[in-house]
Amino acid sequence: MRCDRVWSKARLATFATDQPDSSEGGMGVVEDGVVASLDGRIAYAGPAAGAPAFEAAETIDCEGRWITPGLIDPHTHLVFGGDRAHEFELRLAGASYEEIARAGGGIVSTMKATRAASEGQLVASALPRLDALIAEGLTTIEVKSGYGLSLDDELKSLRAARALADVRPVSVTTTFLGAHALPPEYADAPDDYIDHVCFQMIPAVAAEGLADAVDAFCEGIGFTPAQTRRVFEAAREHGLPVKLHAEQLSNQNGAALAAAFGALSADHLEHLDAAGIAAMAGAGTTAVLLPGAFYFVRETKLPPIQALRDAGVPLALATDCNPGTSPLTSLLLTMNMAATLFRMTVDECLAGVTREAARALGRLDSVGTLEAGKACDLAVWDVERPAELVYRMGFNPLHARVWKGEIA
Amino acid sequence: MRCDRVWSKARLATFATDQPDSSEGGMGVVEDGVVASLDGRIAYAGPAAGAPAFEAAETIDCEGRWITPGLIDPHTHLVFGGDRAHEFELRLAGASYEEIARAGGGIVSTMKATRAASEGQLVASALPRLDALIAEGLTTIEVKSGYGLSLDDELKSLRAARALADVRPVSVTTTFLGAHALPPEYADAPDDYIDHVCFQMIPAVAAEGLADAVDAFCEGIGFTPAQTRRVFEAAREHGLPVKLHAEQLSNQNGAALAAAFGALSADHLEHLDAAGIAAMAGAGTTAVLLPGAFYFVRETKLPPIQALRDAGVPLALATDCNPGTSPLTSLLLTMNMAATLFRMTVDECLAGVTREAARALGRLDSVGTLEAGKACDLAVWDVERPAELVYRMGFNPLHARVWKGEIA
Ligand SMILES: [Zn+2]
Ligand SMILES: [Zn+2]
Repeated sequence: MRCDRVWSKARLATFATDQPDSSEGGMGVVEDGVVASLDGRIAYAGPAAGAPAFEAAETIDCEGRWITPGLIDPHTHLVFGGDRAHEFELRLAGASYEEIARAGGGIVSTMKATRAASEGQLVASALPRLDALIAEGLTTIEVKSGYGLSLDDELKSLRAARALADVRPVSVTTTFLGAHALPPEYADAPDDYIDHVCFQMIPAVAAEGLADAVDAFCEGIGFTPAQTRRVFEAAREHGLPVKLHAEQLSNQNGAALAAAFGALSADHLEHLDAAGIAAMAGAGTTAVLLPGAFYFVRETKLPPIQALRDAGVPLALATDCNPGTSPLTSLLLTMNMAATLFRMTVDECLAGVTREAARALGRLDSVGTLEAGKACDLAVWDVERPAELVYRMGFNPLHARVWKGEIA
Repeated sequence: MRCDRVWSKARLATFATDQPDSSEGGMGVVEDGVVASLDGRIAYAGPAAGAPAFEAAETIDCEGRWITPGLIDPHTHLVFGGDRAHEFELRLAGASYEEIARAGGGIVSTMKATRAASEGQLVASALPRLDALIAEGLTTIEVKSGYGLSLDDELKSLRAARALADVRPVSVTTTFLGAHALPPEYADAPDDYIDHVCFQMIPAVAAEGLADAVDAFCEGIGFTPAQTRRVFEAAREHGLPVKLHAEQLSNQNGAALAAAFGALSADHLEHLDAAGIAAMAGAGTTAVLLPGAFYFVRETKLPPIQALRDAGVPLALATDCNPGTSPLTSLLLTMNMAATLFRMTVDECLAGVTREAARALGRLDSVGTLEAGKACDLAVWDVERPAELVYRMGFNPLHARVWKGEIA
């Protein structure tokens, strides 16, 4: 078999559902494995025994290292202006909410800084965050808008997100989150803002092809289910799949609403109930869990992991990287938090940032597992067993990263 | 002033108590600062205005970056054999303690692997952990023995810890922790093991000059206060200062016992009571808090931070890096955990891994602040304000590290 590059003498955690999976749980393990790439795609991934004879321009001896699919972060707010470290500092020092607001804290401060930044400045400020994720083997990332909150600033944010893929070897999917918060221009007129989102923003975003999906923040302090439904209807009219920030602080039945629109994912889900779980299971909607936000805001209500498992709802994990509630740029740490705080298993954690994260983005056909035909996105790890990737805190054993067949 | 190297145009968080400290809290901030080194020591650290004229071989323009003292980790178990990732995996998958023991889990598994390893192997396996800490600006680290639990294996572990300083530009202090756990050879004879610790191990460790301090694990599942007292008496006889793993799982009045021996520090302290706090305050014993272990074992009882503050007990932070309860190799993440979980302020967190960590090691005369005469151990950061070092998770903004005046 002609190919560009072969990774040999590797142990593979393929996450392919058709690998004979033995003692290692649901990771689709191949102990003596090989991966071959051709034209950026996986030409072969599986046992060395029974592999075709390769004619490769380059063969890399992995010396027994583990290869997983490149990591995928399916929920981030990576593009924003400013930072909120000072607000964090004030809060710890005992400042009141009024004092923090006076010092320019809160989401409005991020909105102002995002509006004040050029597209190039937004790209530049997001790059160190993206680089931290890439340094841990990330190859695909979802990036939301939602800090511009005006037509121009939302379009600018989405363009900045798309532009990240021009300056780094990484796949970016973008999500329009105009319904993230109410901008001051529409104070006390949320329905007017939703009109603006539905009739101006979504059509413009769709016309420019700037978003792969539409999201909203359905919450007591966000938008109502009725407003969320209108956003979803506008998205459907423009052929865009939906997803939702749902049941983070209270049960708004947002996940069921999302499922009714065939949502890719419902995210957060601490307050999800049985009806929401059943609706997600019925619709094939993935649960994207965000343990970094759970940790950072010191939430105590756990998402209903066991009930989600029992219902067969796919479980993905994401950083939720954002300046207010999850200034997190590590999928390794995200996995540790999911295991430690949510008691997710090692297999679930690793599947959550590979196969299930791909599913949450609607990209399972092209990334997320080591299978022929998919993008050759790989993470090569200096570990003795994949569990080390979940168990350790503040340690990065990445040996090499491969994006579309290229070592990068 | 003749000097080797000057760092100019820097913002300094000196942590010196004599800097006029304005709005930035207790960090001893100098907004337009300069640091000069000579022969590995700080020749000057303070405002550019009023600094002497320097004749330096090299001047580095810091372009407004922040400089803190090099970070100090005052409590680690960095040297050990094997790892416990599989045990973590089994536990998450629902294995019982019997199943984990049968699979070779628990501290005994670490003891066996440590005994089986040569000194060189222990050094080699500790280096990636040390390198992760160094990559975040660490310049001084404490390393304990305590997984050998036999004379030869404890000496080997301490030699390995000392040897780390031969292969990396870092200062290492070592602590003998023979009274960490009961080795199987002494099952049901803990007092005999304490005899061995006091009459064979401590004299041998002292004779070889292998330890800077002596520690013990005073706990229901560890050693009793009476046994701990005997260890402390032996340490005193050999001129070694003491410290203690105290009040982690229950109140054994260990901190008060440690204070009675003028201990450098009492560590963990979740179950510390008012009498223990008063004793520590009276003796000048530093509290070393270990939020990584608190997080990893999902502890819910918080150490009495406010009462410790009120009593004026110095607060230090450490990773407690160990394979069983804190596989953590990041002081940045340690600070975030202390802020998020313990509500320590930004100033306290940063002082906890610099000035107060130095105090906990009895090294405040030579490291831990930016003051003339101390070792020129610096961390130079790409941040706009020191709070970012505490606020972010999984992000390393280190620009440069300096150990004894050398960029390394
Ligand atoms: Zn979010
Ligand atoms: Zn310890």
